[in-house]
Amino acid sequence: MTSDASPERRLACAALSRAVALDDGEFRALYPRYTPEEAWERLVTGGPDIPERLLGATRRAVAAADPQRDLDAIAALGGRLVCPGDAEWPATLADLGDRRPVALWVRGAAPLASVTDRSVAIVGSRAATPYGNQVAAELAVELGDRGWATVSGGAYGIDAGAHRGSLAAGAPTVAVLACGVDVSYPSGNRRLFEEVASSGLLVSEWPPGSSPTRLRFLWRNRVIAALARGTVVVEMGHRSGARRTCSEAARLGRHVMAVPGPVTSAVSVGCHALLRAREAECVTSAAEVLELVSRVGDLPPEPEVPAGRRDRLSQEAQRVLDALDPVEFLPVEEVAAQSNHDPAALDVLLDALVEHDLAVCSEGRYRLGPAALEDVRRTA
Amino acid sequence: MTSDASPERRLACAALSRAVALDDGEFRALYPRYTPEEAWERLVTGGPDIPERLLGATRRAVAAADPQRDLDAIAALGGRLVCPGDAEWPATLADLGDRRPVALWVRGAAPLASVTDRSVAIVGSRAATPYGNQVAAELAVELGDRGWATVSGGAYGIDAGAHRGSLAAGAPTVAVLACGVDVSYPSGNRRLFEEVASSGLLVSEWPPGSSPTRLRFLWRNRVIAALARGTVVVEMGHRSGARRTCSEAARLGRHVMAVPGPVTSAVSVGCHALLRAREAECVTSAAEVLELVSRVGDLPPEPEVPAGRRDRLSQEAQRVLDALDPVEFLPVEEVAAQSNHDPAALDVLLDALVEHDLAVCSEGRYRLGPAALEDVRRTA
Repeated sequence: MTSDASPERRLACAALSRAVALDDGEFRALYPRYTPEEAWERLVTGGPDIPERLLGATRRAVAAADPQRDLDAIAALGGRLVCPGDAEWPATLADLGDRRPVALWVRGAAPLASVTDRSVAIVGSRAATPYGNQVAAELAVELGDRGWATVSGGAYGIDAGAHRGSLAAGAPTVAVLACGVDVSYPSGNRRLFEEVASSGLLVSEWPPGSSPTRLRFLWRNRVIAALARGTVVVEMGHRSGARRTCSEAARLGRHVMAVPGPVTSAVSVGCHALLRAREAECVTSAAEVLELVSRVGDLPPEPEVPAGRRDRLSQEAQRVLDALDPVEFLPVEEVAAQSNHDPAALDVLLDALVEHDLAVCSEGRYRLGPAALEDVRRTA
Repeated sequence: MTSDASPERRLACAALSRAVALDDGEFRALYPRYTPEEAWERLVTGGPDIPERLLGATRRAVAAADPQRDLDAIAALGGRLVCPGDAEWPATLADLGDRRPVALWVRGAAPLASVTDRSVAIVGSRAATPYGNQVAAELAVELGDRGWATVSGGAYGIDAGAHRGSLAAGAPTVAVLACGVDVSYPSGNRRLFEEVASSGLLVSEWPPGSSPTRLRFLWRNRVIAALARGTVVVEMGHRSGARRTCSEAARLGRHVMAVPGPVTSAVSVGCHALLRAREAECVTSAAEVLELVSRVGDLPPEPEVPAGRRDRLSQEAQRVLDALDPVEFLPVEEVAAQSNHDPAALDVLLDALVEHDLAVCSEGRYRLGPAALEDVRRTA
């Protein structure tokens, strides 16, 4: 593992993550001004520019902090503390501004940044249905098959489905916990956490031994959103914590995606609400997720399975076909507008369609041809 | 029933609907220039401004036409021919321009325009799943309970589910057929058509005895889209005729709505494709449908069932609550931006939230309060 941060940096980060409430606004206000080493130094010595309240709130914990003990503990777990300055520190966390983590306690062999570079967060309800569990797992499997990792929160339900899907595909998965990476919460996922630690990464902002708290769960969600290229919510009730992960993702400029489900299911209500409000894109497969989050340089998305005459056409020609009416002859301008083509570029496509009886031309206007109508089902 | 069209108009419309291919572009080009009486007169006498091809194509049918016999036939069925100029002629059909129907053959007691004035089209796959049938029927029942009619195509599957739901709610439903209103196609819906004729309306552009053809099914879809305020597609495969009804609705400026379903279901693929392309709004209930299609003067949508402390707040206050962070104190400007409120209007709302411990204020910044956090689930 490449580790570029200095030993002093790592000690300071370990100490800060133990002694300070990481969501403390006054503490976070120091981020732009000081390195972790400088911030820790000032908390210890009571530097004049550190607010009195912060000094008071942290005095006891600062005095009690023993960062080397925490670093020894994580080493004993086979883990490490990843700090800003390390090669594996994910650059994407910078998007969180002064809400970025001080450092991340990590178990698992792979370098964090290279795992999260091509990763998608899959989140959702703990009380998932078999449908939701299946969809989350299959999404993760398909993402894994295409070389993409998943990020989630290690909870029951959708989170566990996502982690398990990646593991099944032999792909890495990242569980971002609200407790120490040696604490199995929820305990029913103990075995899953061990598998994640051995094939993927267990990650936490809090040092070994830390307990999960309500605020830590909420605060943790921003790290899930920031590590991944986009967040997919699979099943979500009316007021799920996953909603906050989605808001974070949106706030960070990441893609927010929702998987629809039966409208008769209470745990799809939150997904449909996001879709209705156009706060999420509708996705139904890993290919559609990757269509959104992929960039130049990523693996290309899988081609769709061709089926039927229409599907043997180029995508351009299909768009033209979709723009034609079965009955009315439309002027080229309207076909161009409806198919989003340049009118000048349309001639070749229309000629090809006419040649295959997929379109009919009359006085420079076009409608669907007999070969296309054969494909159309008879009733609505 | 109020009928304002003259007997001559009705005879001319009956004759045209029998003798002319209604989708004939040259025939439709006469619409802006002539009344139905004038158009019929010119087809009979071979007026000089009628294209030769059109005269040739219709000569035999024009000579054979016996409009009074068709009007007698529809009267014998207890029906009528509704023409432009009749009080019950739906004004919304004018949106179709020269693609509007010449006239509509109708069975059923209620005046067509007053039924369709507050109506929603529900369309979808013939090969619907039990889920789709249930959703279509329940939507129609709920719409009916709120005084809204449905419009559909009388096919198996989603269409039948919609008609049956309205009938079950004692609400009118309109079946727009691709054959004569005395022809039961598909024959398995014969009994359904009789119920629709006695409690709702059977409607067709083609005179009694006409058979359904592929083109008539396609051509008919535009009438479904034009009669209703909006079109809801419940289940739709990759290449369903319902897709054309949706395109028509969009083209006519009507609301296009899609009901999501399991992503594992092949007959929800078309709905999800519309949602992904943002060509349809996501709807999951009649209330959401009516939220989109209602206008001032319609019945108000049902209030949502309140549940929990948050739901007792006004919608404005809920939006503010959604904008607050559990951890970070946000400046008023950011809360205003995220909740889409005017900052000036926010003070009262924030004060009320603070008063109820739903928000906490510090130095003019706000975050979620303890009472709101109690409501938040612990994990993602």
